[in-house]
Amino acid sequence: MKPLEGVRVLDLSHALSGPTCTNMLALLGADVVKVERPGVGDDFRHYTEHAGMAGMSVPFAGVNTGKKSITLDFKKPEAREVILKLAERSDLLVENFRPGVATKLGLDYDTLRQVNKGLVYASISGFGQTGKFRDWTAYDHIVQAMSGIMWMNGDPDGGPMKVGFPIIDTFSGYMAVIGLLAALHRRDKTGEGDFVDVAMLDSAFSLMGGAIPTYFYTGEVRGRTGNRGYRLVATSETYRTADGYIAIGANHQHQIEAMCRVLHCESLLQDERFADHKSRVRNHEELRMALSDIFREHNGEEIEPRLAAAHVPVAFVRNLGQVLNHPHFKEREIFLDAELPGADDPLKLVGPGFQLGSGRLEAGAVPTLGQHTDEILAGLGYDAGGIEALRAAGAV
Amino acid sequence: MKPLEGVRVLDLSHALSGPTCTNMLALLGADVVKVERPGVGDDFRHYTEHAGMAGMSVPFAGVNTGKKSITLDFKKPEAREVILKLAERSDLLVENFRPGVATKLGLDYDTLRQVNKGLVYASISGFGQTGKFRDWTAYDHIVQAMSGIMWMNGDPDGGPMKVGFPIIDTFSGYMAVIGLLAALHRRDKTGEGDFVDVAMLDSAFSLMGGAIPTYFYTGEVRGRTGNRGYRLVATSETYRTADGYIAIGANHQHQIEAMCRVLHCESLLQDERFADHKSRVRNHEELRMALSDIFREHNGEEIEPRLAAAHVPVAFVRNLGQVLNHPHFKEREIFLDAELPGADDPLKLVGPGFQLGSGRLEAGAVPTLGQHTDEILAGLGYDAGGIEALRAAGAV
Repeated sequence: MKPLEGVRVLDLSHALSGPTCTNMLALLGADVVKVERPGVGDDFRHYTEHAGMAGMSVPFAGVNTGKKSITLDFKKPEAREVILKLAERSDLLVENFRPGVATKLGLDYDTLRQVNKGLVYASISGFGQTGKFRDWTAYDHIVQAMSGIMWMNGDPDGGPMKVGFPIIDTFSGYMAVIGLLAALHRRDKTGEGDFVDVAMLDSAFSLMGGAIPTYFYTGEVRGRTGNRGYRLVATSETYRTADGYIAIGANHQHQIEAMCRVLHCESLLQDERFADHKSRVRNHEELRMALSDIFREHNGEEIEPRLAAAHVPVAFVRNLGQVLNHPHFKEREIFLDAELPGADDPLKLVGPGFQLGSGRLEAGAVPTLGQHTDEILAGLGYDAGGIEALRAAGAV
Repeated sequence: MKPLEGVRVLDLSHALSGPTCTNMLALLGADVVKVERPGVGDDFRHYTEHAGMAGMSVPFAGVNTGKKSITLDFKKPEAREVILKLAERSDLLVENFRPGVATKLGLDYDTLRQVNKGLVYASISGFGQTGKFRDWTAYDHIVQAMSGIMWMNGDPDGGPMKVGFPIIDTFSGYMAVIGLLAALHRRDKTGEGDFVDVAMLDSAFSLMGGAIPTYFYTGEVRGRTGNRGYRLVATSETYRTADGYIAIGANHQHQIEAMCRVLHCESLLQDERFADHKSRVRNHEELRMALSDIFREHNGEEIEPRLAAAHVPVAFVRNLGQVLNHPHFKEREIFLDAELPGADDPLKLVGPGFQLGSGRLEAGAVPTLGQHTDEILAGLGYDAGGIEALRAAGAV
């Protein structure tokens, strides 16, 4: 049995954060019904590369595996009736409309709990359902700017720098998973549903972890640390090698000694400027220059496994092609294949990010727009005539 | 009732990723028993700023609220007996030793499921319990280098850049929460426990989201995008203003028009080079230069709320001090106070990252080393003489 087998999810979300949440739930075995606008569907279907067919972009497919798609026009009363029936039989609901929109559509938590008091309902938004920023429009990079992430990221000598991928869109989706699963646990004990208010901005603070209590405690705004390790010592840094960059994390004396042995620079260890932690901190810049010269003489990809074998924390700075094709993943099969309608080959994607002893999780097929409309309606008790009437009314 | 009330967690973890996981579980109401080495405890207790007393660093306190601390020396057989009793009555277990260490200590999943077949056991490691990298030492910035995160982050004209905070330490802890809660759901249905193998490297790919399927589909390694929004248009960028930087996300025509009205640069809209999306893409660099000149004339903090009111996605690039003290958080109370032994004031920290309709979650006190040793032992059935014997043997 998959972890979330039997859990029913009603997915009213679009774009990235909501679908990331429900994609994780689907990977874990939940039964996810994705509701989309007739004709167009989730805007993300039409975003950049198309995989196999129109309305099936790769970014869309990557976060919509194993879901069932039904089209519904929220503004039609006949469609609202369908939504209420779906909400009645669902355990979890996810939406990421702008705050206030769900209420306007009559699909807010207070309305839907009337038909299902055990429903756990998550709303994902930029800044949350309360507070001064509530109605501001958010994109990932806007929240990065607002939250301090951009300010903390980048070169100490340069300006603030956005993280190079939509970190908060994705992360806030995972935060919603945590809120939903925790509230589902309580629901299973008490029968009571819950409302989970997930804000991208609040999620950003959770991801920044210790930076927040440290600021509150010291009142001090820390500068950008660039490529230095968190200990801020020269032996925990990123250096240029003959064939690219390498990151080193030699924090402890035994790691530093091992590093010098592999790099044939034991003379550094004899140098009294670098003899112990205190002197290395005092002479940080000289040590950094010395190590810069040493690493530049080596081939990074060649020394990486030798340093690792000597228990020095190390990684050659890889791009996605270099890491995803590494033999490590021959033994550790974390990538899944999702069937793509219209394409000859399945789409390869990341699994849930962890592996379970109870069995490998698989990714289901990516749905075409409205692929399961009839099947879902039939499951709700609509007969052929009822489905035809919904279609004639433009509700599906 | 809190979401995870009654859930018992045995926490054998240290440093950052494991404690982040169990801190979230504690915030959600679980009963977390943190096992620490006698005398020293979690190394993170002694890391940078001390809050109130020795052995109570701020980074430690931030991820160890509401836990109970018991000291146990894993190498003493008497301590092993205590651990087995704790494992027997626990629902979840979290450890982040290096792969192989738990087995050496006789505390691995296969051993502990013998005393509790319903135990859900999470192991967090750098590269996972399988694969070529299994035994390599990982720190956060090493995994950033390995995973492609560093390669994708930073200035397009510069080299790879580490994200400015330990993003993967934190995120892999949250991934473990998802794995644990999903497996707990299955356990509650079937009585069967599970093993959750969380790797920092695999987690990094989950956080990168769409980049992975996009690489697999196109085979193309994308360059760094720096501070540009993901649409790569000049109206979705970060600009310097008279008093700092501002991030703009005007992707749609109506947003661009609103931005120009607020900035009094409607003339741009008349310019045929920038009249529509296609021409703006064609003349990207000219538009970027024109907007650079315009934003430099404005005060960023002053125009931000005016742009937001006109529905332009916008944020002044704030540092932590500027955002955490913003009036938004007067209405939206996401920060919690945790009692700190030895300190006059509580430590302020981020809550779970979401708010629940069923009630505000609170942070419990941060434990001193071994504060609950006697209480926990008594709960396991040890009497005063038994506890004294454990102490005499150096087991606690």
